[in-house]
Amino acid sequence: MPELRQNPATKEWVIIATERAQRPEEFAPPVVEEKEETKNHCPFCEGNESLTPPEILAYRSYGSKPNTPGWWIRIIPNKFPALVPQGNVRRSKQEEFFRYMDGVGEHEVIIESPRHNESLATMSQKQVEEVFLAYRERFITLSQDPRFEMVMIFKNHGRSAGTSVRHPHSQVIATPITPMHLRHRLEEAMRYFDDTGECVFCAMIKKESAFKERIVLETDNFSVFVPFAASSPFETWILPKKHDSSFQSITSERVKELGFVMKTVLCKIHEPLRDPDYNYVVRSSPSHEKDVEYYHWHIQLVPRVSSVAGFELGSGIFINSVIPEEAARFLRAASST
Amino acid sequence: MPELRQNPATKEWVIIATERAQRPEEFAPPVVEEKEETKNHCPFCEGNESLTPPEILAYRSYGSKPNTPGWWIRIIPNKFPALVPQGNVRRSKQEEFFRYMDGVGEHEVIIESPRHNESLATMSQKQVEEVFLAYRERFITLSQDPRFEMVMIFKNHGRSAGTSVRHPHSQVIATPITPMHLRHRLEEAMRYFDDTGECVFCAMIKKESAFKERIVLETDNFSVFVPFAASSPFETWILPKKHDSSFQSITSERVKELGFVMKTVLCKIHEPLRDPDYNYVVRSSPSHEKDVEYYHWHIQLVPRVSSVAGFELGSGIFINSVIPEEAARFLRAASST
Repeated sequence: MPELRQNPATKEWVIIATERAQRPEEFAPPVVEEKEETKNHCPFCEGNESLTPPEILAYRSYGSKPNTPGWWIRIIPNKFPALVPQGNVRRSKQEEFFRYMDGVGEHEVIIESPRHNESLATMSQKQVEEVFLAYRERFITLSQDPRFEMVMIFKNHGRSAGTSVRHPHSQVIATPITPMHLRHRLEEAMRYFDDTGECVFCAMIKKESAFKERIVLETDNFSVFVPFAASSPFETWILPKKHDSSFQSITSERVKELGFVMKTVLCKIHEPLRDPDYNYVVRSSPSHEKDVEYYHWHIQLVPRVSSVAGFELGSGIFINSVIPEEAARFLRAASST
Repeated sequence: MPELRQNPATKEWVIIATERAQRPEEFAPPVVEEKEETKNHCPFCEGNESLTPPEILAYRSYGSKPNTPGWWIRIIPNKFPALVPQGNVRRSKQEEFFRYMDGVGEHEVIIESPRHNESLATMSQKQVEEVFLAYRERFITLSQDPRFEMVMIFKNHGRSAGTSVRHPHSQVIATPITPMHLRHRLEEAMRYFDDTGECVFCAMIKKESAFKERIVLETDNFSVFVPFAASSPFETWILPKKHDSSFQSITSERVKELGFVMKTVLCKIHEPLRDPDYNYVVRSSPSHEKDVEYYHWHIQLVPRVSSVAGFELGSGIFINSVIPEEAARFLRAASST
């Protein structure tokens, strides 16, 4: 059973992932390089459905059976989950110095395509829309589970972004706690709202739209820009223009537009930066704080082109060697197909 | 001039490092691998003093001239500084939505040895003590500059820890702001103190000492353990047993003991994990909050044996696949020479 532990000094939670437990000795290099999986033994490829746990959900052609070919999006439990669905969501006793709890949660993999060598930047527009429809469906379902405080959709693309699996996939994790990291962001947004009566993200969208120099893309319902204080080169934020605190509320029409926006942005980094590794995360309010005035869901996209060192670890201050306005100009000019 | 920018939504500061500015195009791979520098053109090697900016401080043999051979520790300005000593430390106007300020600060390199192929784990005990004496000296001097809010000493060892320079060195950065990351930690520690009347780190030292299973090493004046909620395998904290909020206050006698402790701990990861990359940071209270009851300076050591991916980026929750008690047992058993 995984365990959630809280640091009493920082109040930050960590997951002690016993399902993927490693002995200390295993960390000594030379690490045997994981072999690049090929179609024959990649568990995410079409035809290899028996190599994964049974599917939770799949978008598949009419009449095809679960866990067989015929799907175009497939969602499965993570085989080595960080958190597991069974257990007790109560914290350890208040009077104990070290707080911990069972590692209860959900950890799923969203296989974005039956084909091994694709990526969101290269697959069809329609397919990307389906990926985002699948995100929406799992996000809504998991958000309704009263045990979970936060649902997070994220993608690791490439080895330096934390994945060795090349087959295109995203992940979703539901946690029984609201982490400090999110709570601090909610608090800052709340403070701004209480001062001004306005959502800080709504204000930011207006400022960026008027200033134009950090805008990468605007559509009817989405604003895409390099943030004023981007923490790394090409960091990009994607926000719905209309105020909305939770990804739970997005309509299926809008989620298709979001698919278009994400494909466009990912093409803009894929071509000129030659398929860089990247992460993105969907940042949404906690599951049980669905409709709040002060928070605004958004996607943070971070191409992994620079490294994080001791100063960032210690101070939380990132050092960015590209001026955000120049990064935005570069991305605006980049081809979107 | 570098610029400090604050994200209005998260209140986090970043440094836009114009002194090391790169054009967006430069991030497209194939990056030309930086050649491993050798003694002949390594600017940190003895005899190559003319390749660096003039030294700020050096521990050198009697009669030897500044910026010539004869030193065993040498401190120089960083040639590509994240922050620079000139400029205005005032924030931009309160009424502006996007807050920024000049990138004023100090960024120095502490060259730990005249010899290229050494590391703290392999150099003499005496030499490591001198490194920590140099830390102390620069920390005290920079902490007295009224423009600086935070002084941070840190070390990046190895490429995945953020350095491509093999010659052993540490860095110190002084910033004109207290980052949110530190402020949040101070707040949590303050809350604990206000609840209990005790420093949370003092309490932690006592708990760990009684529990024993996460202890790596104890000396007369220092406690070394894998924290209960370690965020990665082998994360280790080094704390003075006696309450002290700032590294400014350490005596030169104690700093030598700290040198012994750090060398011992670094040996314990060097041998069995085969010289892993690592970072460490000296976490101290802000310069102008030198003697507070609720905070306790410490060193956080993080071997870079696991990767940080989208979930960590989005949630701040780290996933650790080694049980902290097992990591501590492993480090206790490891040779310390």
